[in-house]
Amino acid sequence: MTGLFISFEGVDGVGKTTQVERLRAYLEAQGRTVVVTREPGGTALGRAIRKLLLHGVEAGGADISPCAEALLFAADRAQHVAETIRPALERGEVVITDRYLDSSLAYQAGGRELTSKEIRNLSMWATGNLLPDRTYLLDMDPALSHNRLEHAEDRMESAGSDFQNRTRQAFLDLAAAEPDRFRVIDAGQPIEAVWSAIETDIAALLQ
Amino acid sequence: MTGLFISFEGVDGVGKTTQVERLRAYLEAQGRTVVVTREPGGTALGRAIRKLLLHGVEAGGADISPCAEALLFAADRAQHVAETIRPALERGEVVITDRYLDSSLAYQAGGRELTSKEIRNLSMWATGNLLPDRTYLLDMDPALSHNRLEHAEDRMESAGSDFQNRTRQAFLDLAAAEPDRFRVIDAGQPIEAVWSAIETDIAALLQ
Repeated sequence: MTGLFISFEGVDGVGKTTQVERLRAYLEAQGRTVVVTREPGGTALGRAIRKLLLHGVEAGGADISPCAEALLFAADRAQHVAETIRPALERGEVVITDRYLDSSLAYQAGGRELTSKEIRNLSMWATGNLLPDRTYLLDMDPALSHNRLEHAEDRMESAGSDFQNRTRQAFLDLAAAEPDRFRVIDAGQPIEAVWSAIETDIAALLQ
Repeated sequence: MTGLFISFEGVDGVGKTTQVERLRAYLEAQGRTVVVTREPGGTALGRAIRKLLLHGVEAGGADISPCAEALLFAADRAQHVAETIRPALERGEVVITDRYLDSSLAYQAGGRELTSKEIRNLSMWATGNLLPDRTYLLDMDPALSHNRLEHAEDRMESAGSDFQNRTRQAFLDLAAAEPDRFRVIDAGQPIEAVWSAIETDIAALLQ
């Protein structure tokens, strides 16, 4: 049995957590060992980095520069791969991560000042070129996903709806560029219909 | 008056702090505005990162991977340049930093698993290709510098004397590769003699 690496992507509030748990239950019922993890913050180091990223630096410093931000996300990812993802895959387990490098590409490159190529190079270096076997992009209109959020006041989410719209489009562009890896799922559907689309795909992938 | 960017490099305990302060006093006496700073930890974000790097993650996580470590140093440097160094240089001031990218090259590439080219590319990206106008490498036998240290118990310093010797040699190799930027100063001399060598050079540089 070889390892399988799956990521979920999409803007906040599209229902990734629910679908990650459905997929976990499905795979465990098939007898697979499943590791569910997330970025940022999948490791102890990552959680410390995540605190810096979400709440900024409370000691009175300036804003985090776009370049420093990209490097912090990459550090989180490097540790995540080294400590959690790669060892689990080597044990033949399934790893499901809530966000991975496509989030950096969509949020940082799509939404801010850095180029997509720069961010991708950084992430590929950080991960030793580890890409998911499958990426589910849960896609919906940010205006709808925003309504689903109970708390939307962290640093990323306060960036406004233009930013959300650009980020959504960036995710769609990424999916279009790598159709073999991505499946775009309409997350505006009921939860059961979203899961059904994922289930059909994963069943085929496991064959 | 244009900005001037000076870095001090060398293993711990060679007397960088003392010489940085001598140089600051000298330049201020010439009427220059001087910003003295350091890496890691020159900004509020950098101090938070430095804590992670020096003391590891106390929440029970694994060791920081070499790649994550390099990215954290690069994030510190990116913020340092964006928030402190570049604005001061643009105001025409002198910036003196206790460690800069050569420390990453010597400690991470010289001492650990990553290649020098990888670390250099990372730092050049992080800084927008900003190199010092002058780098003073304070060089001495690590066995002697170790005796000078009052507290040597942080994560980097506990790596042992083989590591220190390789790091020293890495610094010397860097200096040999960029003779226009570097001045290698024998830090085994008395403090006044070390300063005298720096003073002669900076006087010529300021002409």
